[in-house]
Amino acid sequence: MKLKVTKGTRGQPELSRKAILDAASLEFAAEGYAGARIDAIAKAGKVNKALLYYYFHDKEGLYGAVLDYNFRGLLDELIRILDTDKSVGHKMLAYARAHFDYVAAHPHYRRLVQHEMMRAGAGQSEHFPRLVETFFRPLLRRVVETIEEGIEKGEFRKVQPMHFVNSMIAVVVFYFTAVPVIKAVSGRDPLSFEALAIRREAMLDFIGGALFADDVHGARVLAGVLAENPGRRPSGKVAVAKHTTKGKKK
Amino acid sequence: MKLKVTKGTRGQPELSRKAILDAASLEFAAEGYAGARIDAIAKAGKVNKALLYYYFHDKEGLYGAVLDYNFRGLLDELIRILDTDKSVGHKMLAYARAHFDYVAAHPHYRRLVQHEMMRAGAGQSEHFPRLVETFFRPLLRRVVETIEEGIEKGEFRKVQPMHFVNSMIAVVVFYFTAVPVIKAVSGRDPLSFEALAIRREAMLDFIGGALFADDVHGARVLAGVLAENPGRRPSGKVAVAKHTTKGKKK
Repeated sequence: MKLKVTKGTRGQPELSRKAILDAASLEFAAEGYAGARIDAIAKAGKVNKALLYYYFHDKEGLYGAVLDYNFRGLLDELIRILDTDKSVGHKMLAYARAHFDYVAAHPHYRRLVQHEMMRAGAGQSEHFPRLVETFFRPLLRRVVETIEEGIEKGEFRKVQPMHFVNSMIAVVVFYFTAVPVIKAVSGRDPLSFEALAIRREAMLDFIGGALFADDVHGARVLAGVLAENPGRRPSGKVAVAKHTTKGKKK
Repeated sequence: MKLKVTKGTRGQPELSRKAILDAASLEFAAEGYAGARIDAIAKAGKVNKALLYYYFHDKEGLYGAVLDYNFRGLLDELIRILDTDKSVGHKMLAYARAHFDYVAAHPHYRRLVQHEMMRAGAGQSEHFPRLVETFFRPLLRRVVETIEEGIEKGEFRKVQPMHFVNSMIAVVVFYFTAVPVIKAVSGRDPLSFEALAIRREAMLDFIGGALFADDVHGARVLAGVLAENPGRRPSGKVAVAKHTTKGKKK
């Protein structure tokens, strides 16, 4: 079979593979598994449909690859943070910050996860067991170890690590699920740069309050984590939540 | 028009109205708005379809009534707690406990909310603005006032009330959304009576840690809130998380 490829594959197969996965991520996120169309993905990725089938076999195969691709991006970032030689307290808040920033920067990731959770909940996902073994379980083990270390050292409150992780993820991601309610109640855009900067600090403060045995120490760690990565506007301008600058002007 | 009514309406219209709403809650929760069938609801509620249309006009009207009916049950319970003369700290944790217990006891409520959030997020819900005005906004105002009072008295940390509420709701409800993941990772049923009792205490501990200025005081309030309503098995047996009984046996 001869493949007619619109976007160069000779010598750059990874490039067209990535183009397909990016296009497919958007399509599956917008339409769900059932509604997504292979034609639309090939067109958006600027690749021939034959190449798409050559790489991913069928729609289910492509969908599975899209899930792996998107979780891999987040997992690598989170493991990198747990691998640093910072204090366990710093690592935990930096972890929550990185998760929040990833979700904020990838709107399609949020919808992909929602769709996949509903499929998994209905027992309809063949990919779910693989996601659990490849991503969720190894990551969870690392975070639980980090929490246990912090409890042992007396830096953290005596929390139940597994439940702490569940609550922490909740505080990180639920804001994005609640966007319609927040928008309707506040009349403002919860996803504006300013709103996200304020939420980012508030959710880290909440998690820190629940985590640290000593509140003053926790506030110091939080300040360090925010200083390390203050968040950046698309323009490159440093993001600072409005209320945090109050009283700091001289 | 003469109505042929299977279940007595003469003198008990509220009973058949309730029967329809209960049946419709289950059907809309299971099938979503698009998939729900009026025939199935009439059959399950043991009422004539004509009576159903007489009460609720059409499918959209019935769906709106189902949303109101389900939110009303939770709202009344939560407002009742905020109206007590307990301390603000006690009220906040009792509020989270009642919300958790309501969601745990009403599986169809969780799915109704999920469906409605997705409809609202897609701009497809004509009921959402009414839900916001009738339920979300008044409730939010009361909770924010309670938090502000606690901050003023020095009992609470200096949190941002609106964001605190968002994080608190996250910790209460996210566990139920994450059931497929928790089940796959732990190999156990996250909705068993024992698992729910442990989660209930862990999520209150997390919220308390994030809320109270003084951790020792927070632990005392938490103990009081759990003692006030330890949760009950369907059999009426008192629910106590396994780990909390440790060392208490004599």
